[in-house]
Amino acid sequence: MELGLIGLGKMGFNMAERLKLAGHKVVGFDFNKEATAKLTQTGSLGVNSLEDLVKNLSAPRAIWIMVPSGDPVDQTIAKLEALLEKGDTIIDGGNSNYKDTQRRHAEVTNKGLEYVDCGTSGGVWGLKEGYSLMIGGDKAPVERLRPIFEALAPSPTEGWGHVGPSGAGHFVKMVHNGIEYGLMQAYAEGFSIMKAKEPLGLDLTQISHIWQKGSVVRSWLLDLTAAALDNNPTLAGLEAWVPDSGEGRWTVTEAIDLNISAPVITESLIRRLRSREENNFTDRMISIMRGAFGGHDVKKA
Amino acid sequence: MELGLIGLGKMGFNMAERLKLAGHKVVGFDFNKEATAKLTQTGSLGVNSLEDLVKNLSAPRAIWIMVPSGDPVDQTIAKLEALLEKGDTIIDGGNSNYKDTQRRHAEVTNKGLEYVDCGTSGGVWGLKEGYSLMIGGDKAPVERLRPIFEALAPSPTEGWGHVGPSGAGHFVKMVHNGIEYGLMQAYAEGFSIMKAKEPLGLDLTQISHIWQKGSVVRSWLLDLTAAALDNNPTLAGLEAWVPDSGEGRWTVTEAIDLNISAPVITESLIRRLRSREENNFTDRMISIMRGAFGGHDVKKA
Amino acid sequence: MELGLIGLGKMGFNMAERLKLAGHKVVGFDFNKEATAKLTQTGSLGVNSLEDLVKNLSAPRAIWIMVPSGDPVDQTIAKLEALLEKGDTIIDGGNSNYKDTQRRHAEVTNKGLEYVDCGTSGGVWGLKEGYSLMIGGDKAPVERLRPIFEALAPSPTEGWGHVGPSGAGHFVKMVHNGIEYGLMQAYAEGFSIMKAKEPLGLDLTQISHIWQKGSVVRSWLLDLTAAALDNNPTLAGLEAWVPDSGEGRWTVTEAIDLNISAPVITESLIRRLRSREENNFTDRMISIMRGAFGGHDVKKA
Amino acid sequence: MELGLIGLGKMGFNMAERLKLAGHKVVGFDFNKEATAKLTQTGSLGVNSLEDLVKNLSAPRAIWIMVPSGDPVDQTIAKLEALLEKGDTIIDGGNSNYKDTQRRHAEVTNKGLEYVDCGTSGGVWGLKEGYSLMIGGDKAPVERLRPIFEALAPSPTEGWGHVGPSGAGHFVKMVHNGIEYGLMQAYAEGFSIMKAKEPLGLDLTQISHIWQKGSVVRSWLLDLTAAALDNNPTLAGLEAWVPDSGEGRWTVTEAIDLNISAPVITESLIRRLRSREENNFTDRMISIMRGAFGGHDVKKA
Repeated sequence: MELGLIGLGKMGFNMAERLKLAGHKVVGFDFNKEATAKLTQTGSLGVNSLEDLVKNLSAPRAIWIMVPSGDPVDQTIAKLEALLEKGDTIIDGGNSNYKDTQRRHAEVTNKGLEYVDCGTSGGVWGLKEGYSLMIGGDKAPVERLRPIFEALAPSPTEGWGHVGPSGAGHFVKMVHNGIEYGLMQAYAEGFSIMKAKEPLGLDLTQISHIWQKGSVVRSWLLDLTAAALDNNPTLAGLEAWVPDSGEGRWTVTEAIDLNISAPVITESLIRRLRSREENNFTDRMISIMRGAFGGHDVKKA
Repeated sequence: MELGLIGLGKMGFNMAERLKLAGHKVVGFDFNKEATAKLTQTGSLGVNSLEDLVKNLSAPRAIWIMVPSGDPVDQTIAKLEALLEKGDTIIDGGNSNYKDTQRRHAEVTNKGLEYVDCGTSGGVWGLKEGYSLMIGGDKAPVERLRPIFEALAPSPTEGWGHVGPSGAGHFVKMVHNGIEYGLMQAYAEGFSIMKAKEPLGLDLTQISHIWQKGSVVRSWLLDLTAAALDNNPTLAGLEAWVPDSGEGRWTVTEAIDLNISAPVITESLIRRLRSREENNFTDRMISIMRGAFGGHDVKKA
Repeated sequence: MELGLIGLGKMGFNMAERLKLAGHKVVGFDFNKEATAKLTQTGSLGVNSLEDLVKNLSAPRAIWIMVPSGDPVDQTIAKLEALLEKGDTIIDGGNSNYKDTQRRHAEVTNKGLEYVDCGTSGGVWGLKEGYSLMIGGDKAPVERLRPIFEALAPSPTEGWGHVGPSGAGHFVKMVHNGIEYGLMQAYAEGFSIMKAKEPLGLDLTQISHIWQKGSVVRSWLLDLTAAALDNNPTLAGLEAWVPDSGEGRWTVTEAIDLNISAPVITESLIRRLRSREENNFTDRMISIMRGAFGGHDVKKA
Repeated sequence: MELGLIGLGKMGFNMAERLKLAGHKVVGFDFNKEATAKLTQTGSLGVNSLEDLVKNLSAPRAIWIMVPSGDPVDQTIAKLEALLEKGDTIIDGGNSNYKDTQRRHAEVTNKGLEYVDCGTSGGVWGLKEGYSLMIGGDKAPVERLRPIFEALAPSPTEGWGHVGPSGAGHFVKMVHNGIEYGLMQAYAEGFSIMKAKEPLGLDLTQISHIWQKGSVVRSWLLDLTAAALDNNPTLAGLEAWVPDSGEGRWTVTEAIDLNISAPVITESLIRRLRSREENNFTDRMISIMRGAFGGHDVKKA
């Protein structure tokens, strides 16, 4: 079937390619003209305006948005609302906050359009391995988009599903990313402990490969970690600085709102925050307190 | 080659079977005569005394101990020292504390025997999928045992390795289990958050299956979780009570000894401790404090 | 000076009394007619409508709101706006979220009234010991209210201050309560550890009293704890169940918004959430996973 | 009464002074001859050998050890055992691990001497305000030393107590210090959050003083913090680097051994470990994982 695709970045471009390989017609837009030109070269159609995007699709249209969460999504929807017709569907495949999604669903369907949210996991590997898709929204448009989901997913029957009403897809993706934070932190702590046990002279790369087969901790993240250690066994040149892109902190505040204790996901987020605090004020407060009651030496900057 | 195997429990029995299928001769001992009889029925040799075990193996012997950590290992070693000859090797394949392993290595090698430690992961699935083996000890005995490791591992070249001197195998297995605690807690928290989001009516079983393919959080633990949810989607009949068997707490104290901060592995252990605290005293202390300063109502038992 | 006081609950009634003892004229309103009658009996004036409250105060009026945070504050403000005159001041002395306070300040001042926020600490002890007051808002109304603050505070020059613009008072009070969560959890954990060390037979009440004098951990919370243990040394009859009233979770989400890592305040909140989770789903998920990979026994309900 | 005092450092010297002021005769020893000379100048007796120390005390003697925990305590005891007589008492007033204390008690009493452990809190302020004393050991020697405890404590009837058998004093002091870690971390986090809320322009020094009176978080630690902020309101010149001296990590491992969940004390320790990890390996591991699955940019060193 036909799909409009807005946003030809790391994720979007690969998704277009995977859809094309499955026989779908993709019309792609991006503000970056190099990206649209490149898309055309690969055999899909890259266009340089949303008007052209809409014009090149037959009704009822399906337009997949793959842009940064927040304002860019709202702005894109506003423009599309002016161009689309009753019965057309907008799919937000990015990492939007599910509350925004529910608000947008109400607004968009109020105008006679359909609105579907799709949490999309798989990163840069999705082109080859397929994307895990967590889909929220009304039944009819989700069903109509089935060929797209079957093509993007690892297989037509695996790795995707309609998980609930509007917002459910992004909610599940949010939790997925929260879990991901916890998994990464658990592995990273384990490797740090092994590295610190200097008398044993452990080879972290070797161990990561051993664990890939037969161990209880084997996982795709471990596979990637082993490959990364092959390339850079000492993590040379990397800063101890970890950003977070939203879903982790949303998971944490959602857990609190739901009165669910989630210490490990929370702590994983807190450690990322900590990694970006320079000249940590909390530690300096403790240092000055120790000096105050115990006469303990404090380390001077 | 020939291998003596002491301990025919859940793990040991399956290991004997996997070795036999690979063409090795296994002589197995257990205090449980049903287990030894059953071993004989499967085509290996079950014996009812350590003397018989040793007698049925040609020198230089290799005897794999698969018994609960702690005293049972020391007692088994003491008996074996009286029966074995110079050049024979004892392998501890259980979850011993690596410090005990290093002590035992010194004692056993002092008597002219060899001592190898092997962290063994794979649980009840090892028979079919192979075991992940993390091996510590001196080079010569480890090299001599290569055929055994190649047969137990998922493949001759994968899932096993000689990771360092005596104790290194058990150290790496300890950290492996510490990571495992963190991974389990991360998944469990995520599923709890989704369950609590009642208005979305999420189907945890469905989601676990979606994530198995293409998602960033796919793993063997997730595969098992999905299968477990197939059988028991509401976790009916389970108590919210989680034991811990040693490696987790050893990892935590080792991290502290090494001055490495490992909050997620630590918190995962703490939550297991918490699960077993009934009528939690800490919470009651906080309750009485709140009543004391704020006149807040406390919940009466 | 004169002060209108809305809300004659645990906190409000005592504040009226402390103000009266300092020579101020308090006109108090509450929906509860028993409370207003009781106020009149103590020598202040209790009234049964906001109209009467306003009528009994001379302009420029100062009206202190001491009602539950959230809608009750907005509803009270809406009614007062209809009754008050330009130059009158509303003071919110409750535990409002500072963001609500900033919004209300904009709305109220837009109508020619003044709006001051005052974080009020001290609990049921404030009548006798005075209240700690953290005040936010514009300079002029705060300065005009100085006699009220001096009377409510532990002393005219101690325990109160104008900490910043609108919202600053409630922000500082919010953080105060976040710290309070951490302090309580730290003490409670320590007492739990001592209680669990059964062979030493420690007397928690005795220890709490020892620490009151000369120790590094002496504090007002400890004083209250010692008194509470005098009354109930085994915490008999208390449920291990701890509510949270908002400021703790606001502190945690604020820290995240500010990219500040605050693990101990966060963990203190998480433990309160945990105290209210019955038949903990996270623990049951871990239990089922352990059964799945290791064949470990799970505890049946 | 007479007391021998070994160790005239920060704590020991002040204790000698406090005892002298209460009318006791103190004979003090330190390897540092300046310290012993200074002690003599203050009116007590400083000596330069343990022989002289013992010689200058009448039997039954009481000798208080105030030296760093670990080997120095064992070495001092060994020397004293050779010099003392049946019925003499050794008091360990330092921060020894309670397990060492119990071992030493068995050894020392086996030789006919008495052994008392005393957890001593109060830091550099003890001279003026008195020390909080948590005492463990047998009843007779503790009772005999009562005049010493009454003089060191804040008052004869407050701030000290015999809390249990040998080791109990050091156990309670260990937990005291664990709580202290948690309290400090809670305050420090709160101040960090307020500092980060830049638009409010909060004055941390002012707030610390406000909270000293009437607030729920008032404490001696807060008093010291307020004084420290008076001197250095921006914590200028301090490194974000916090040591830990043993009791905190002992508390954490003890809690684990007792199967008590103590997340806040534990996390407070973990943050101290974190403060000393440079170029944090865990964070770099997470960074490389993010790059591996998501193509996320990593920050280069």
